[in-house]
Amino acid sequence: MVSEQRTADVSFESLLRIFTVPEGPDSTLTQIEEKLSRNLNKFLREHIVAEEKPLREIEKDFSNAAIPEQPEFVSDHTQHLLDNLVSHSVHTSAPSFIGHMTSALPYFLMPLSKIMIALNQNLVKIETSKAFTPLERQVLGMLHRLIYAQQDGFYDKWMHSANHSLGAFCSGGTIANITALWVARNNALRARNGFKGVEKEGLFQAMKHYGYDGLAILVSERGHYSLKKAADVLGIGQQSLVAVKTNSDNRICPDDLLAQIKSLKAKNIKPFAVVGVAGTTETGSIDPLRDIAKICQQEECHFHVDAAWGGATLMSNNYRHLLNGIELADSVTIDAHKQLYIPMGAGMVLFKDPSSMKSIEHHAQYILRKGSKDLGSHTLEGSRSGMAMLVYAAMHIISRPGYELLIDQSIEKARYFAELIEQQADFELVSHPELCLLTYRYLPEHIKHALEIANADQRAELNGLLNEWTKFIQKRQRENGRSFVSRTRLTPAHWDRLHTIVFRVVLANPLTTCDILQNILQEQRDIAQQAPKLTQKIEALAQQICAK
Amino acid sequence: MVSEQRTADVSFESLLRIFTVPEGPDSTLTQIEEKLSRNLNKFLREHIVAEEKPLREIEKDFSNAAIPEQPEFVSDHTQHLLDNLVSHSVHTSAPSFIGHMTSALPYFLMPLSKIMIALNQNLVKIETSKAFTPLERQVLGMLHRLIYAQQDGFYDKWMHSANHSLGAFCSGGTIANITALWVARNNALRARNGFKGVEKEGLFQAMKHYGYDGLAILVSERGHYSLKKAADVLGIGQQSLVAVKTNSDNRICPDDLLAQIKSLKAKNIKPFAVVGVAGTTETGSIDPLRDIAKICQQEECHFHVDAAWGGATLMSNNYRHLLNGIELADSVTIDAHKQLYIPMGAGMVLFKDPSSMKSIEHHAQYILRKGSKDLGSHTLEGSRSGMAMLVYAAMHIISRPGYELLIDQSIEKARYFAELIEQQADFELVSHPELCLLTYRYLPEHIKHALEIANADQRAELNGLLNEWTKFIQKRQRENGRSFVSRTRLTPAHWDRLHTIVFRVVLANPLTTCDILQNILQEQRDIAQQAPKLTQKIEALAQQICAK
Repeated sequence: MVSEQRTADVSFESLLRIFTVPEGPDSTLTQIEEKLSRNLNKFLREHIVAEEKPLREIEKDFSNAAIPEQPEFVSDHTQHLLDNLVSHSVHTSAPSFIGHMTSALPYFLMPLSKIMIALNQNLVKIETSKAFTPLERQVLGMLHRLIYAQQDGFYDKWMHSANHSLGAFCSGGTIANITALWVARNNALRARNGFKGVEKEGLFQAMKHYGYDGLAILVSERGHYSLKKAADVLGIGQQSLVAVKTNSDNRICPDDLLAQIKSLKAKNIKPFAVVGVAGTTETGSIDPLRDIAKICQQEECHFHVDAAWGGATLMSNNYRHLLNGIELADSVTIDAHKQLYIPMGAGMVLFKDPSSMKSIEHHAQYILRKGSKDLGSHTLEGSRSGMAMLVYAAMHIISRPGYELLIDQSIEKARYFAELIEQQADFELVSHPELCLLTYRYLPEHIKHALEIANADQRAELNGLLNEWTKFIQKRQRENGRSFVSRTRLTPAHWDRLHTIVFRVVLANPLTTCDILQNILQEQRDIAQQAPKLTQKIEALAQQICAK
Repeated sequence: MVSEQRTADVSFESLLRIFTVPEGPDSTLTQIEEKLSRNLNKFLREHIVAEEKPLREIEKDFSNAAIPEQPEFVSDHTQHLLDNLVSHSVHTSAPSFIGHMTSALPYFLMPLSKIMIALNQNLVKIETSKAFTPLERQVLGMLHRLIYAQQDGFYDKWMHSANHSLGAFCSGGTIANITALWVARNNALRARNGFKGVEKEGLFQAMKHYGYDGLAILVSERGHYSLKKAADVLGIGQQSLVAVKTNSDNRICPDDLLAQIKSLKAKNIKPFAVVGVAGTTETGSIDPLRDIAKICQQEECHFHVDAAWGGATLMSNNYRHLLNGIELADSVTIDAHKQLYIPMGAGMVLFKDPSSMKSIEHHAQYILRKGSKDLGSHTLEGSRSGMAMLVYAAMHIISRPGYELLIDQSIEKARYFAELIEQQADFELVSHPELCLLTYRYLPEHIKHALEIANADQRAELNGLLNEWTKFIQKRQRENGRSFVSRTRLTPAHWDRLHTIVFRVVLANPLTTCDILQNILQEQRDIAQQAPKLTQKIEALAQQICAK
């Protein structure tokens, strides 16, 4: 496109051409696009997870820090991308890729994404987005209503109000969580008696004015790592993110939460926010939201729910009760790029009170002028794409009952897989699925028996070897590339809270079948035999324990 | 797609279908895509800026907060989007849209974006991105080299190092700036003598440990509003963002910078970061970076350069000297979705020292494990799309000399427009273009004369009326929809630093012609006559001034 010959000079005329709409269905670009579509479709149909090429090898293809001095033809470069990038990317949409929260996408989003890319709107302000701004406000309204179920009059009044905001659309759950805690912090340390508010004077002055010795955010020990990042960024400090105990179901213990709040207050530390998790990243567990809400109300804390994963469950009339109490939250994070099946980059935070975000409002002279409806005055990010249109489109094309079916089948598939694991003599289900996540490990019956009767030292030793085994199986399975489960570290009550490495499974792809799940177990069983030294060690220790 | 009839029930089979790759070139989805492409191409060829429909009217189409209970056909919904969204969006790519930094895109990015959307990689970790991770590291390496021009050995050593990072790819310049200042804050208040660092213990403890009475970030009074947001989020407080005086060219005054630093230090306030601007948002002015660097070195401040707009100028061997001294910065923000012509959502921050980001590193059990090459351990965001591939592709297809041509023609077009404005008897050029931005206003010669000879009160009054005029013209021109310039408020030295509303122009679209620029002036001249009462007031006051 750029040059007539690969070695020709760049000319301004050829550059102008690349900014000019390609004419007709036979243009080079149309042909390239067709080839690309065919290739991508072929790639997506191949039900493997990844090609077996080590990262170090791939890095060699991406090792030149010099910006090219010679332009490439679009067609040549497209081929280069197909060979070097596409073929060594991860098939996150493969039905046997059940290791992470990134999954398949509905195909209609591919053509519709073109609208977003081609129009290149910037949602920070109306002057570069026009109709996209009311659209995004409507999407935020839809999610707000899904959570808080206010009357129509509420949305008529606030959804398009210039000086209010039902939430913020952002690039993902991390920014959503940071935004929620930013709002909570600024509201807790607001202006009063001559103090101009933490947003103006900063944390040091705020602490001196309010006379606190510290601040705290409380969350279950299973909370997402983004909260630690939030505590760091916001100047609270990671140590002020207080971990609350969980019960054997990985849910926060309300008694411990209350006790911790009381103890913090006794130390003159202000617990300004509590985060309830609705779908922990590791196990999909949902905190008892109603109990947390009651404590927050009583203790005057901002109640934020991190429902980045689980929020979409509200779409199902059959399972939305699992999130009971979420309507009492002051703010809620939901990721549309997780269980709403939208491409990467679609997070949201919703606020119960349309005035909450006042505390982080900002203005500038050339945009976001006071009284304007520019969305940018209430977002942490500045320039943003029109991603909300994909959420809007999916809501209309799939509809709520469609999402209900998707959510229901995911949860039911996870229950099936849990039962399947429990039926095996050589696997242990570590966490039961509340949503569509579960964890398990390879643990043959006789080894499990040894683990049960072992004394504390032996148990720790054997468990350590089992952790090696789980890691080995997970890595090898990933390298084989036929299927993928992830791994994490839990502390199961059943095993004295020992650090336990487990396989972690997320069953969100509607194309994942029961057969695939059975094959994954069989593959893991087979791989377990491929580490003879480790297996020998485990067997020997188990024998020694049982011999006593 | 979802249902056979518009009123039919949702079935799981129909849902499975939407996740299944459409077969063949005649599939419904392929047909929809072709129709969509035709429609979008037609839209993009229409050289107008926006349809004349008031926002309040558009909002009526986006007023329902209920999530639909009935699925829609993809084809029906696509038509709905074309009618209600696309036709009322802003033609940011129109050659007469010269008001903001969002501009036209090279057409080859439309098909290539498909790769990004279809593969739906998540760059937070290698397990969901594989080859995309080394690709993003290479892109960061390319930008690093463009700024810092280190030897090949440097990039061989650090670009793919698990424990280092040349920067972070993020959704935009705001997150990039926040990241840079987050790193600067954490490095300034690092762990020592039993204190565990601000990231762990928070700002309040950090200030007590270090014994400072305050912190400060210094930036010219023309700095971007995102810096105020950063100061708020990071707990520094907006008041601690100290505005440094600018000269008549809207560039920071090094003397004032040094004086302010000294004065802060005398008050026991730690100025931990200075932000130099390379391309202010309002006027495109570039601070004297070398002078700032020298002061930062001497005063031990982190030196950050916000080159979100101007950074791409480094691509031009003819104009990169304008940014001399940027290579002395500790960190630099560059937005690829501005002058690198990438779709919305592509910002970057680069750090001179590959170890700088250590101070914000974070880990988790299921991803970002220590020693992994997961990009997520050094980003403010969590899940992120594979947007870096579009930067990579554009670098190869356009190449550095191609970007040089684009940058050069933008700057030269701005110079042409500045001359054109100066030739008019009824326009005043307010800020000369250093890059491709300039500001001006409608100011007929005899009114200008009155403004010059007026006393202070009269001048303020007349200037206020002129501001109304500029606002009126800008709004009416936007509403007419044929062309678009933005507006902002400056304080020109020439006019006693009076608040002066000006037209703001960004000339980044290579398709904008000299004819279009001439027409824009003519349209503004015509509109100026459409506010007879205001014109009368201005004329009367001018006459009164001149009569004395």
